Amino acid sequence: MGAVHETLDALRLVDHHCHGTVTADLDRAAFESLITEGDVWPGVSPFDSPVGVAVRRHCAPLLDLPRHAPPEEYLARRSELGWREVRRRFLRASGTDVLCVDTGFAADRLTTPPELAEAAGGSAYEVVRLEGVAESVHAAGVEPDAYADAFRAAALDAVRRPGVVAVKSVAAYRTGFDLDPARPSDAEVTEAARRWSARGGRLADPVLVRHLLWTAVDLGLPLQLHTGFGDNDIRLHRADPSHLTDWLHLTAGTIPVLLLHCWPYQRQAAYLSAVFEQVYLDVGLTLHYVGPARAGAVLAEALEITPFRKLLYSSDAYGVAEFFHLGALAFRQGLAGLLQERVDADELSLPDALRIARWAGRDNALRVYRLPDDMPGGD
Amino acid sequence: MGAVHETLDALRLVDHHCHGTVTADLDRAAFESLITEGDVWPGVSPFDSPVGVAVRRHCAPLLDLPRHAPPEEYLARRSELGWREVRRRFLRASGTDVLCVDTGFAADRLTTPPELAEAAGGSAYEVVRLEGVAESVHAAGVEPDAYADAFRAAALDAVRRPGVVAVKSVAAYRTGFDLDPARPSDAEVTEAARRWSARGGRLADPVLVRHLLWTAVDLGLPLQLHTGFGDNDIRLHRADPSHLTDWLHLTAGTIPVLLLHCWPYQRQAAYLSAVFEQVYLDVGLTLHYVGPARAGAVLAEALEITPFRKLLYSSDAYGVAEFFHLGALAFRQGLAGLLQERVDADELSLPDALRIARWAGRDNALRVYRLPDDMPGGD
Amino acid sequence: MGAVHETLDALRLVDHHCHGTVTADLDRAAFESLITEGDVWPGVSPFDSPVGVAVRRHCAPLLDLPRHAPPEEYLARRSELGWREVRRRFLRASGTDVLCVDTGFAADRLTTPPELAEAAGGSAYEVVRLEGVAESVHAAGVEPDAYADAFRAAALDAVRRPGVVAVKSVAAYRTGFDLDPARPSDAEVTEAARRWSARGGRLADPVLVRHLLWTAVDLGLPLQLHTGFGDNDIRLHRADPSHLTDWLHLTAGTIPVLLLHCWPYQRQAAYLSAVFEQVYLDVGLTLHYVGPARAGAVLAEALEITPFRKLLYSSDAYGVAEFFHLGALAFRQGLAGLLQERVDADELSLPDALRIARWAGRDNALRVYRLPDDMPGGD
Repeated sequence: MGAVHETLDALRLVDHHCHGTVTADLDRAAFESLITEGDVWPGVSPFDSPVGVAVRRHCAPLLDLPRHAPPEEYLARRSELGWREVRRRFLRASGTDVLCVDTGFAADRLTTPPELAEAAGGSAYEVVRLEGVAESVHAAGVEPDAYADAFRAAALDAVRRPGVVAVKSVAAYRTGFDLDPARPSDAEVTEAARRWSARGGRLADPVLVRHLLWTAVDLGLPLQLHTGFGDNDIRLHRADPSHLTDWLHLTAGTIPVLLLHCWPYQRQAAYLSAVFEQVYLDVGLTLHYVGPARAGAVLAEALEITPFRKLLYSSDAYGVAEFFHLGALAFRQGLAGLLQERVDADELSLPDALRIARWAGRDNALRVYRLPDDMPGGD
Repeated sequence: MGAVHETLDALRLVDHHCHGTVTADLDRAAFESLITEGDVWPGVSPFDSPVGVAVRRHCAPLLDLPRHAPPEEYLARRSELGWREVRRRFLRASGTDVLCVDTGFAADRLTTPPELAEAAGGSAYEVVRLEGVAESVHAAGVEPDAYADAFRAAALDAVRRPGVVAVKSVAAYRTGFDLDPARPSDAEVTEAARRWSARGGRLADPVLVRHLLWTAVDLGLPLQLHTGFGDNDIRLHRADPSHLTDWLHLTAGTIPVLLLHCWPYQRQAAYLSAVFEQVYLDVGLTLHYVGPARAGAVLAEALEITPFRKLLYSSDAYGVAEFFHLGALAFRQGLAGLLQERVDADELSLPDALRIARWAGRDNALRVYRLPDDMPGGD
Repeated sequence: MGAVHETLDALRLVDHHCHGTVTADLDRAAFESLITEGDVWPGVSPFDSPVGVAVRRHCAPLLDLPRHAPPEEYLARRSELGWREVRRRFLRASGTDVLCVDTGFAADRLTTPPELAEAAGGSAYEVVRLEGVAESVHAAGVEPDAYADAFRAAALDAVRRPGVVAVKSVAAYRTGFDLDPARPSDAEVTEAARRWSARGGRLADPVLVRHLLWTAVDLGLPLQLHTGFGDNDIRLHRADPSHLTDWLHLTAGTIPVLLLHCWPYQRQAAYLSAVFEQVYLDVGLTLHYVGPARAGAVLAEALEITPFRKLLYSSDAYGVAEFFHLGALAFRQGLAGLLQERVDADELSLPDALRIARWAGRDNALRVYRLPDDMPGGD
């Protein structure tokens, strides 16, 4: 094993976007529903997919099982150990030092950021999901012409809580990015809030989604944007981040924008990161879904033109602690594989490779989120 | 050669989407026109392309010629053997056990499904192309307000014939998929049929294309959809299957939808197959056009997140019997290559690899089309 | 090293699309600004990117420095040698025999085509950028109803100068390709010219961009089109060349159309080249930005279905002479690597591989631009 693998294996990662894990033991149906972006369909087990194969291969050994253990054995052993121990094992194994936790989506009771930090032996920060804030404001009842101020006040309250380092938007799920890029007028927002009150449901009005993105600019914190791959609530072609170009022009010089996941638009995201100072990207979520067998290929596309200061690591783990381990493993192996290959071909010097590894796995995130670095040797 | 290659080489394939071959000897111009999605242009022989190289490399030996035989020798020997013998050799060599034959496009007199079955030593079923049915109804003369009923009745007649297992649409060629997803009203269909009568030509009205897709839902059989790559009648970006998302939501719980070809949108198709129960995909047509040299790379992208129950094999052979052999060969080699590589890296167990190979090459199709399996060891 | 590498290393390339280099010594800021499609941002040096790594690896030795020399040493040595010597070394090293130079974009004083030819030891031709012609006409003052005639006359004058072999459009930057494909009427052009006069600025009116593309058809010379990747003035999704399909149908049988750069739409460009006689493509610009480490992967996608007569070489070098060397090196290594691999796997015969190499690197361009070939052995 080469020096790049050793360095990446030893690197304490910063996972700049993740979620909590379910605080309960999971039966097969519950577990399977958490390892797919689809549903659990008769005859099509999520175990029979790249991510299922990766769980059996790379997670089973951490539960003291042989590699490629059958699903039944895997789940039995998981229950035997109990969710607390399982969570501890996978978070420890992930080698994650810092976690930035999106607390805005929780179908289940989830592990809190401090609990994740303790399990990982690191520290945790919080990411505020703005759609959740807006929907709370709306649910509490607000006059349409007071919506903008109420949302902004609630968002400011939310981000001023200790430990909040970023905001997030799932605009990709609500409208996609082919939006009018301009900041909407007060009158437009009021009118849209009126429509929302009349129609109900979640925040999905294009004017209000635009308003939310511009409110993020006002808040001044880095903005994480879901892009690309997700569940079937996405219209994939509208989640192509290149549709954000006009908005990125208008907001240049304001907040950092972090493109999450990106697959299959990792090249489009790379382009944006190469031509807009404020744009960064990761291939979180993608890494565990494609598994270590393809993580290197996806990372290679993502890195084709991306400045090395612009790639971050995230697991986007949600629900099951396995994804902290799998994401970290796929990232370490994938990135180390491609860097080592370039070192071996003398396309890249070893010191440069080690620097890139450390930047992508740790330093870039510390820098964007202005987090303290208690590890020696960073930049 | 590893166990996965051996298993895939021995596997009797189900080719869930193919066409007949021309029942005549072909001169150079005729042959060349059948091995390109373009035309035959002066100075740009289709032999000087990936598919042409693959024909000379992999088909020449089956005609008792050396590998990489020159086009002239290849075509001379092909004529010498005669089209019946050529057809027999390539279909036998393909190791195809079951063929689902789209009988709806025939510029030439083509081999019929029973003739293909005999040549292959297997069995054949039929796929009804719905645009052909609609155009026959229209050509026969029908009042606009009777079109919907007449089309439905004709489609029902067509699919009730023995051996019909699926319908197909080439909506990708007619309008693309960025259509209103809703079922059109009777009045809309009548009005559109009136426009068609006035304007003539093939079925290309967006309302009638939508109506056709919804009629497929009513028929209840699996629906094959051309997506991605084809001749220059396609607007490629409009053949991206992610544009089908809203329609897939509306039709969830009804019919299986099989995305054909997909390239260069194999990742978009994979996404849909991962989040919609009813969606399946293949990379037929693509496999012989990119050739064995790239089939593995395309399959690797197609399989990044696709559930292993959702990938099918098709050749999409049309016109020349070579494509039955080339498609099968590219599929076997490409899939075996990527699975064996994962087995060798211990990313996948050998039993899992063999199961995935059998599912993709055979069992998934038998299951979707509810075909009998006369081979031992299936699922 | 195999025979394909040797042949490609020895091949005198035709660079069918490039620009001049800056005729001055460059300080760090100036050099960095020329090796990125973005800007130079604090803390994100363009040297810390794939292209920067490639410059240090592959260009440093030509300045008598060790591989992977640090940026400071690289730039110091570059200044020591002086821009004339640097230009000479990289152009000579590129092994380029013929250069087709786009003279239409010049933020700086640039090397002229004859100067490039002399430095390379080859010959140079000129490519006329039509937007520049239109903007000169506009800047000189023209009545709206005289714009069409004045632009055409100026364009005819421009292309009749000795050595002009092609025209180029940056429509991708101005409107993208999702345009009405039809030739605009005289009245539409006049009205649009009136709007332009009123609004000022560069040519960006959709009607005038269409008119420019149709004027290119009238001129009768090959048309180079920027597609895909560029600076942040691009809306990447609108620079997908598949949006040109309707226009390509309308202009079939007229002029050759050369799709430049293409990334990340190299597969879409390949599709167009496979189904339209008049379409050709290159992956210039991309090659040096992704560097030799990924040039092979990008070329492999570009060649998946592209007829071997349809791929051309360009560097798209601009500003720094390094890009002539890097582009040529990445092309030679990338193409040789993928062809040799296929020869080694017996997927391609060696004579075919050598023919493809020579076509892509040289003969295809000579043919499209009808240039004399003074090298023995061409076609």
